[in-house]
Amino acid sequence: MSMNKHFKTIALVGREDDPRVTEPMTRLVNHLTSAGHDVIAAPGIFQETRVRQVAEDNLASQADLLIAVGGDGTMLYAAGLAQNGEVPLLGINRGRLGFLADISPDEIENSLTQVLNGDYTQESRLLLDARIVDPDGNARTSVALNDIVLQKRDTGRMLDFETAIAGRYVNTHSGDGLIVATPTGSTAYSLSCGGPIIEPALDVVVIVPVCPHTLSDRPIVIPADCEIEVKLIARTDSKAEVTVDGQSHGELSAGDRLLISRSDQRITLIHPPGYDYYEILRSKLHWGLDNRSHGIDPASEGGN
Amino acid sequence: MSMNKHFKTIALVGREDDPRVTEPMTRLVNHLTSAGHDVIAAPGIFQETRVRQVAEDNLASQADLLIAVGGDGTMLYAAGLAQNGEVPLLGINRGRLGFLADISPDEIENSLTQVLNGDYTQESRLLLDARIVDPDGNARTSVALNDIVLQKRDTGRMLDFETAIAGRYVNTHSGDGLIVATPTGSTAYSLSCGGPIIEPALDVVVIVPVCPHTLSDRPIVIPADCEIEVKLIARTDSKAEVTVDGQSHGELSAGDRLLISRSDQRITLIHPPGYDYYEILRSKLHWGLDNRSHGIDPASEGGN
Amino acid sequence: MSMNKHFKTIALVGREDDPRVTEPMTRLVNHLTSAGHDVIAAPGIFQETRVRQVAEDNLASQADLLIAVGGDGTMLYAAGLAQNGEVPLLGINRGRLGFLADISPDEIENSLTQVLNGDYTQESRLLLDARIVDPDGNARTSVALNDIVLQKRDTGRMLDFETAIAGRYVNTHSGDGLIVATPTGSTAYSLSCGGPIIEPALDVVVIVPVCPHTLSDRPIVIPADCEIEVKLIARTDSKAEVTVDGQSHGELSAGDRLLISRSDQRITLIHPPGYDYYEILRSKLHWGLDNRSHGIDPASEGGN
Amino acid sequence: MSMNKHFKTIALVGREDDPRVTEPMTRLVNHLTSAGHDVIAAPGIFQETRVRQVAEDNLASQADLLIAVGGDGTMLYAAGLAQNGEVPLLGINRGRLGFLADISPDEIENSLTQVLNGDYTQESRLLLDARIVDPDGNARTSVALNDIVLQKRDTGRMLDFETAIAGRYVNTHSGDGLIVATPTGSTAYSLSCGGPIIEPALDVVVIVPVCPHTLSDRPIVIPADCEIEVKLIARTDSKAEVTVDGQSHGELSAGDRLLISRSDQRITLIHPPGYDYYEILRSKLHWGLDNRSHGIDPASEGGN
Repeated sequence: MSMNKHFKTIALVGREDDPRVTEPMTRLVNHLTSAGHDVIAAPGIFQETRVRQVAEDNLASQADLLIAVGGDGTMLYAAGLAQNGEVPLLGINRGRLGFLADISPDEIENSLTQVLNGDYTQESRLLLDARIVDPDGNARTSVALNDIVLQKRDTGRMLDFETAIAGRYVNTHSGDGLIVATPTGSTAYSLSCGGPIIEPALDVVVIVPVCPHTLSDRPIVIPADCEIEVKLIARTDSKAEVTVDGQSHGELSAGDRLLISRSDQRITLIHPPGYDYYEILRSKLHWGLDNRSHGIDPASEGGN
Repeated sequence: MSMNKHFKTIALVGREDDPRVTEPMTRLVNHLTSAGHDVIAAPGIFQETRVRQVAEDNLASQADLLIAVGGDGTMLYAAGLAQNGEVPLLGINRGRLGFLADISPDEIENSLTQVLNGDYTQESRLLLDARIVDPDGNARTSVALNDIVLQKRDTGRMLDFETAIAGRYVNTHSGDGLIVATPTGSTAYSLSCGGPIIEPALDVVVIVPVCPHTLSDRPIVIPADCEIEVKLIARTDSKAEVTVDGQSHGELSAGDRLLISRSDQRITLIHPPGYDYYEILRSKLHWGLDNRSHGIDPASEGGN
Repeated sequence: MSMNKHFKTIALVGREDDPRVTEPMTRLVNHLTSAGHDVIAAPGIFQETRVRQVAEDNLASQADLLIAVGGDGTMLYAAGLAQNGEVPLLGINRGRLGFLADISPDEIENSLTQVLNGDYTQESRLLLDARIVDPDGNARTSVALNDIVLQKRDTGRMLDFETAIAGRYVNTHSGDGLIVATPTGSTAYSLSCGGPIIEPALDVVVIVPVCPHTLSDRPIVIPADCEIEVKLIARTDSKAEVTVDGQSHGELSAGDRLLISRSDQRITLIHPPGYDYYEILRSKLHWGLDNRSHGIDPASEGGN
Repeated sequence: MSMNKHFKTIALVGREDDPRVTEPMTRLVNHLTSAGHDVIAAPGIFQETRVRQVAEDNLASQADLLIAVGGDGTMLYAAGLAQNGEVPLLGINRGRLGFLADISPDEIENSLTQVLNGDYTQESRLLLDARIVDPDGNARTSVALNDIVLQKRDTGRMLDFETAIAGRYVNTHSGDGLIVATPTGSTAYSLSCGGPIIEPALDVVVIVPVCPHTLSDRPIVIPADCEIEVKLIARTDSKAEVTVDGQSHGELSAGDRLLISRSDQRITLIHPPGYDYYEILRSKLHWGLDNRSHGIDPASEGGN
């Protein structure tokens, strides 16, 4: 196999303590090193002489391709590493198809051979910047591939907050919180809260209220280039947490502003030939598997 | 095997033209006749000398037990035959667990032996009477095991109608229509329209608006002994159809009243030992099968 | 006005620091004292000589009627005071109709005169006991009028838990949590999470998953006399809070069991003549107010 | 007032038999003719000498601006007239704010003065082409501003159909039907069926299953330039109707294909200064009006 010139150095990402990762990771290292690639990983990930240890923060800058082995959580983590650079990301799952990790362990050799020979598709996914700006103008920023979630911290009390899009007031909400999701994140938490599925190529975001008190407070799909602003309605006991891709980003206090906008960075995903987003949807959402017999159709169900 | 004295004569119900019914039906006839039961069926269902032909309308009155082979649609149909009498109903599916037909073909011999030996559970399910009463007081009545549905007949136009419960005005609705479902029907069409699952033993009904224009127009669970009245808001082009367990019951015109109340009749279901409603729910609704990887939990999903 | 013999001593409940409570409370005291009633309240509620101070815990035992002035929150609070006794509860709102506080301030004199003359309706509402039982068998118990809610404490992570009803395993859930609501609570948080409206007289509860990961994990209505058991799936980082009527009841840890069952106690509500549950629903849910012009009906909307 | 050169000839559209249209229409004619505009209308709309009669099909070609008076249905109708040309559309409602008809009757003079002076905003809205292609390749085409709906014609039976996007198979659906909505149509029928609100400027469409049998069959937002194909699963009794903006477009039979794609045409809407989409949303969906007292927050609601 001739080595693809674009992917000379390949960085591996995965949890060292997950036995479902170890085996595919070993096959991966065997395959890559025998094909002559330079394989790197953060210390502790894969301890053997064929894998060169590189500090985690430097992985992306030294690699031509990131390969993550694990669930979509690992992919999110790898996306965080990749986002400062131009390095594309490829995902290998642990036996269960993932939205982002779409190569199964038993396809590693075939799929990798194709990809490394240049036979792959590439897509670019939107990222979002989340900033909490306090009254003094101090800001904390994180980058999200899936979603930014504002949620009450003390159970038992609703959160009251208001939203603006591109500087225009939208609504004052009461409820458990709010999700701002990318198309990538539309099939994660957003879907559980009533948000739509969004085709990954679209440059849009969806704002989804979580358990809203007002029953007509519904998801809104907006252009990704509109800045979203969220502020708490001041109450002495309001406590709200902001999470970015499931990781805490900090508390939102009354007076703070949560600003969400399209990131300058994007993430590049690599798929082997045959990648089909709708096939993943069908698999993950059990479409076509349905067997709730409904009894409303005697002609098809039985009846005499 | 000694024959259970309660179930001497057994009536079989099923679609003769469904190949998935023929094979279990044959096993059933073999099992029942060899155990000494008198097996009856309507003409055309199962043409052989061991099965005595009885007119469909007389099946229930001659039988001690009805056994339906097919989907829940066949069970609904058999329930219609059984409802005038005291005869209980047992359901055999075609290889796919049904809400009502809970015995699989390969369990026929074992389960039937248990049931015919008196080892079974019995439950009584609520039925509803649906009556369309015209301005002159003429009424057409049907009995429902699952649901009574009012739906627009001409697509593209909303239906406007009002509801009253126990003589009290409830709401004026706009939308595609309305479902009144029994607990048995709560897992059929009602569930697709946002209704809750209702434990089958409960003596309640649920009123579910279908695609309501007003987003806060939500399902209401009420006591089964409250009469529900539905009337169209007069518009020249209003056309609405009433269906009962998926079969047309007739048109509801402006001026007509649709009255729904608990039926004097109930249906008795027989289950072999081990019957578990929640197990059926888990199977039909794919609970526990879920594998939508969500990426919001790096600790469990991966992450490094 | 002759004094009704049943309601000689009347206890008042309301927030002393809410100006919208002070004015109706004053009218109430004027009305009751001039009619010869013995009016009592906890210290600090209404400081004047005509109102006798009684320790909060003793209010219900000394009173023939509890009158709460405030929102439904105040009603829940008063229900907590009343639940140990037989004393009925009447609610006065602050100008906005409440599900429980259904008398408006400007109706105080008229409605109270009717009620105190014995012209009222009375209804009994279901209460639930919530118990957290630790592995050593120690239990904390609270009583709920609205709902018992299990919710994740750390945002960003789903909660995994399993449910059983009357000793039978139902499902393993992933999501933000679970609500068990009474009919009274069905129009509170439960409704925001997709639960049905339940007629208050029914002796049922609804189990509503909050933002469930599995999209077919839907509300279930069950008999109130079935005990519900909820247990966390052990994960090192699981943290879950139980709230009862919006107040923290404590943490649910792995190994603990949350047991929910019908309380031996109930609450008695008093309504003036003309009380109509459906009218309150229409008012609170804006039924009939809808004006989303939809454009799908040219015949009614316009079209030429 | 000097006359805006762009809008010399103005065509009026509205239902002559709606009394709520007559009065604003008269004010409109007064205003426009006194300002020197050439006012035209189809025969029968507004019978007076100041309004020149022009055949309906020629209105758009002769006019510089279409003004529709009525509900969103009339706007849809006027959009149908305008779609072959470049003529923009302005909507006047009958006293109730519309999504498309956003000028109230009492604002006619002020708003028209502004617009005719060139002080207005203009926006372009996506249109969709719906084509039913039979097995012989014969096609019927309609243009939709709101939505294209496939719905079962016979109540009581589910429709089985499959979808493809840009030539790729997506899913096989069972249920009442399917909506393909533009951003404009996202607040119409689609919203009642669980679809998201979509910002009108976006070049996307949403595919919304209607009462789907499979609970995970959820709305999908896709790029507007992807062709959508819908085919019935052949069953002898399948009957499905296609409606376009609420008007019947014909029956879809087994073997036919329903093809939906972005139209080459778009519609141009004119708004007076101050137009705010979110304000219309708040008004139509009663955001901020909510007063369902929830009782889950004693601190704000009362409690003592």
